[in-house]
Amino acid sequence: MIKTAIVGASGYTGLELIKILLNHPYFEIKGLFGSEGGERIENIYPALKGVFEAEIEKLDTNKLKSFDLVFLAVPHKTAMAVVKEIYGYTKIVDFSADYRLNQKNYEDFYCPHINPENLENSAYGLPEIFRDFIKRVSLVANPGCYPTATILGLYPFLEYIEKDVFVDAKSGVSGAGKGLKATTHFVKDNENFFAYNPVKHRHSIEIAEKTGLNVTFVPQLLPITRGMQISIYAKLKKDIDPVEVLKEKYKNEKFIRIKENPVEIKNVAGTHFCDIFAMKNGNMLFINSVIDNLLRGASSQAVANANLLFNLDESLALPKIAYVP
Amino acid sequence: MIKTAIVGASGYTGLELIKILLNHPYFEIKGLFGSEGGERIENIYPALKGVFEAEIEKLDTNKLKSFDLVFLAVPHKTAMAVVKEIYGYTKIVDFSADYRLNQKNYEDFYCPHINPENLENSAYGLPEIFRDFIKRVSLVANPGCYPTATILGLYPFLEYIEKDVFVDAKSGVSGAGKGLKATTHFVKDNENFFAYNPVKHRHSIEIAEKTGLNVTFVPQLLPITRGMQISIYAKLKKDIDPVEVLKEKYKNEKFIRIKENPVEIKNVAGTHFCDIFAMKNGNMLFINSVIDNLLRGASSQAVANANLLFNLDESLALPKIAYVP
Amino acid sequence: MIKTAIVGASGYTGLELIKILLNHPYFEIKGLFGSEGGERIENIYPALKGVFEAEIEKLDTNKLKSFDLVFLAVPHKTAMAVVKEIYGYTKIVDFSADYRLNQKNYEDFYCPHINPENLENSAYGLPEIFRDFIKRVSLVANPGCYPTATILGLYPFLEYIEKDVFVDAKSGVSGAGKGLKATTHFVKDNENFFAYNPVKHRHSIEIAEKTGLNVTFVPQLLPITRGMQISIYAKLKKDIDPVEVLKEKYKNEKFIRIKENPVEIKNVAGTHFCDIFAMKNGNMLFINSVIDNLLRGASSQAVANANLLFNLDESLALPKIAYVP
Amino acid sequence: MIKTAIVGASGYTGLELIKILLNHPYFEIKGLFGSEGGERIENIYPALKGVFEAEIEKLDTNKLKSFDLVFLAVPHKTAMAVVKEIYGYTKIVDFSADYRLNQKNYEDFYCPHINPENLENSAYGLPEIFRDFIKRVSLVANPGCYPTATILGLYPFLEYIEKDVFVDAKSGVSGAGKGLKATTHFVKDNENFFAYNPVKHRHSIEIAEKTGLNVTFVPQLLPITRGMQISIYAKLKKDIDPVEVLKEKYKNEKFIRIKENPVEIKNVAGTHFCDIFAMKNGNMLFINSVIDNLLRGASSQAVANANLLFNLDESLALPKIAYVP
Repeated sequence: MIKTAIVGASGYTGLELIKILLNHPYFEIKGLFGSEGGERIENIYPALKGVFEAEIEKLDTNKLKSFDLVFLAVPHKTAMAVVKEIYGYTKIVDFSADYRLNQKNYEDFYCPHINPENLENSAYGLPEIFRDFIKRVSLVANPGCYPTATILGLYPFLEYIEKDVFVDAKSGVSGAGKGLKATTHFVKDNENFFAYNPVKHRHSIEIAEKTGLNVTFVPQLLPITRGMQISIYAKLKKDIDPVEVLKEKYKNEKFIRIKENPVEIKNVAGTHFCDIFAMKNGNMLFINSVIDNLLRGASSQAVANANLLFNLDESLALPKIAYVP
Repeated sequence: MIKTAIVGASGYTGLELIKILLNHPYFEIKGLFGSEGGERIENIYPALKGVFEAEIEKLDTNKLKSFDLVFLAVPHKTAMAVVKEIYGYTKIVDFSADYRLNQKNYEDFYCPHINPENLENSAYGLPEIFRDFIKRVSLVANPGCYPTATILGLYPFLEYIEKDVFVDAKSGVSGAGKGLKATTHFVKDNENFFAYNPVKHRHSIEIAEKTGLNVTFVPQLLPITRGMQISIYAKLKKDIDPVEVLKEKYKNEKFIRIKENPVEIKNVAGTHFCDIFAMKNGNMLFINSVIDNLLRGASSQAVANANLLFNLDESLALPKIAYVP
Repeated sequence: MIKTAIVGASGYTGLELIKILLNHPYFEIKGLFGSEGGERIENIYPALKGVFEAEIEKLDTNKLKSFDLVFLAVPHKTAMAVVKEIYGYTKIVDFSADYRLNQKNYEDFYCPHINPENLENSAYGLPEIFRDFIKRVSLVANPGCYPTATILGLYPFLEYIEKDVFVDAKSGVSGAGKGLKATTHFVKDNENFFAYNPVKHRHSIEIAEKTGLNVTFVPQLLPITRGMQISIYAKLKKDIDPVEVLKEKYKNEKFIRIKENPVEIKNVAGTHFCDIFAMKNGNMLFINSVIDNLLRGASSQAVANANLLFNLDESLALPKIAYVP
Repeated sequence: MIKTAIVGASGYTGLELIKILLNHPYFEIKGLFGSEGGERIENIYPALKGVFEAEIEKLDTNKLKSFDLVFLAVPHKTAMAVVKEIYGYTKIVDFSADYRLNQKNYEDFYCPHINPENLENSAYGLPEIFRDFIKRVSLVANPGCYPTATILGLYPFLEYIEKDVFVDAKSGVSGAGKGLKATTHFVKDNENFFAYNPVKHRHSIEIAEKTGLNVTFVPQLLPITRGMQISIYAKLKKDIDPVEVLKEKYKNEKFIRIKENPVEIKNVAGTHFCDIFAMKNGNMLFINSVIDNLLRGASSQAVANANLLFNLDESLALPKIAYVP
């Protein structure tokens, strides 16, 4: 068995990691860590009672060094402070932004980087695109949910579209995390819909850096718990059949489903699938993708990356059965 | 008092008309009509019990001729069949598509027109743009909800943007009407979000005809009851301050509010307001508008148009107080 | 005009008061007050922009003395501290629990009372039951939302039922207020339903005191914004026709509607109505009532009481048109 | 492998059966049947694309006889017509009401029974109560969702309570099935809550027959997709500690969790768990249980019963991981 730790276990992505790993044949959760420690995970999430029960320990980088695999579901800055200590001792999947960007972009949008030497040692964890590189490193920067759904939609079209693209992105409220904020109050979100941080959202640099495009990115908040839908608008440079382009590019991918009709969040919520549809209006292109923001946009993608880090079958334990109806 | 009829009283827009006219100082509801007749409106909508009670009569164009004002909230085709009979006898606000388009566009997207002679006698009922013309006619084609929110957002920018625009439009489920369809089942819509009829949606021709733009229009279904949000993406031909452009164009409009931040459906649900925000990303423009789909997108706009038909204060009875919190 | 102040203007009930008073012919809002002061109400609730705009002042009891009417929408304890100062100078409608109970019950369930001398000077503001007394006082204790809906349901049956009753009460999330709590997080409430503080809820003493019954009260949280439904279960001592009993008792009440079928929140949301239904199963009685928790359960009831305090028509400005469909 | 058929595969409970059996080590889905046949399950539920794909055949009782196990998820009457044909050839779990009641109760509440000789050959499929009998039969009447959650809550208290009990039951909309009805329209249910068929609901006879109690049963519709919460109110004949009574009765049950606080739908949605809480107010008892209406209230309970029919570990394939957060 592969001795596995989850740091930041009490957040939504920590919870999803636990739920996935309960079905994993090799990764065995042997430690949960948090900034405080002391609480029990089944008290924080009573749904786990009788399913998985454990105490959360206070984060201790020395302890982490003894694990084979560490999932780091902590905020940026905290993440690189931990990685700096434990890199080399264990394989790491980092959920934060700390290793997703080149140093210049990171420092322009976030803060000074305290562990820049590991930027080149880390792989950007989108298996469909960087699978081979991920297998050769020991540190994976797990992509954000917005970039995952956007890049998977854009990737097959990069050679066919003009540089300026618009991304109208909608996320369920779980994407905002467990914290209590005005924008997570039920009365604020219910029967409402609104954009937040349009254009300036940090995730747009992640998309721009990975695709080389000029992205106008507008994130919006859907009054649902989980799931994310991306609508991408671009101009074609060439006449193509969009669905055929998608089918060709992803023909060997088990977790990408190409649709002939607009995609629905409900068909992927609870799973690792990314469903994609595209159509054109003359030379105007509409690309439409959906994922579960907490799974393909975070925790199941992390497990896929961890599977690759250990040269296991990438699909081990990845959830396929949606929360339908 | 102005003797007023509502044809199609049992639908959602009929209900909203009743609710508005209860507060109108001149328009007095003296007849409700429907395709069958015989039911009582307070049985269809028990919320009206003790507030407004009346029987719905079977549609009879001869009876309609005796009214001063007729609101026609019936499907296209039925609408023009009625207008053909009663035009000249009464003032008419038609909720259908029958008089919104020029004959060619109408027949390309709908069906042969049986009353083309009245196309030039009708005004397109967007008061902020066609106010003066509306005052001179006796037949108003009340715009669709999607075109209302989209055109009000685009209108101030028409001289500044390139011809190709993308419209990512989201509507609450009430926009789909009372009919029982797979897409109005609670279990289908709840915790879901999806586009329908992308690109090919009929409302896009209405927007294209009124703006002269090449519109790629994607309507999507929000899991809320009422309200609509439009995100428009365009390329600027000229460097402008988007919020200033909006403020200047609409400085005399009482029911358009220009915002410095993204707009929220919740602030306009229950009202005639259209809230608009815009910002740019280099030369990429994002325009963001919200309306109540059943009010500004249908029934309150119809009342505003009727006010103009009778040379009354346009704002009479228009709802201003939102369904907040 | 009657010079009116709202203390606690920034809360949901303060907002609803503003919305109602905008349609009141005599009560004119001349002051908004809050614990801090300095903010503008239209910034807190952008829906009010262009409708009602004003600065919130810091609470000052001397200023309040110069008003004709003060609505106190502040927490218990704060309320009695203010009333103690301003009683006699102005008419007062207090939204808190401070004057709803006799001293013993209050001190058992809340805290020591600092203004007990005014307990007998205050009326319990359920107009259907205490109308005459309300007209003779200058201080009204506006009932809680749970007691309002429960007592209005129970009141006609008091002579026919046994002492032990069960109340299964469900409230929309707005009843929990604007504060950020674990139980107001969207992700917690959405697709969920749960009881909170069963049996021990403070509102049960209010019901018990007013009805003389032994009440087992279970409040539960509905995943909706507004509205409240009460299911009451009791044993009949006598064979009666429940709907007839309701109709007889409330035959002169304009804002109570007796239904022949189970009641729906949607028919009263946005209004001052209380809809009630009842039926029996042998000698077991089921009573079913709905109100808008923020209106009949708070702000519109406060306006009804204020109308009575000034000997005005009780129904002035009370909202009748529901948030349907 | 055990050759398994699902009849009525296109309904919600058919879908849930498929989802569960994908994880079952022995039950292999070898046939899907429906009233028409011809459609593919992955077209009806696109979430199954790439996960489980199959054609639905037209129902044919001769074909069914060749299976080892048949799940019958069809309406009552249809069910007994099929059972009459195939009984003796295969083991059967029937989701309908046809074998849940004694003949008199069935015929009083439903219709004449065409297969009464099998009533005594069938077991009522609540494993916690009838486990031993289920193992000895080949036909299981799978209980309804309301009776499951209610009886599991009442069962430990039967000797301690008086005969008259009140059951306030709330179900998510999926309980109403896929059919298009006024009560499944999104606009009707969203932001609403209402009782339907109070007192007269058919499920109450099922509860009364199994418990011997006089049940006043009020089913209500929650604006959520899945999950069910039951609040039971009864009078104690004896002073007990309710939580201790529950713990003692269910101490060996892996899928019943006794809580110290009110239960939440969210903790059981997606699972076979039934969470139960109880407390008293003097001699008044409040019992509070939650289940997933489509799983413990239908499909996972059917699989538990099928496991028992084949003398397998009852918990095989039963889902434990909830749809949280």
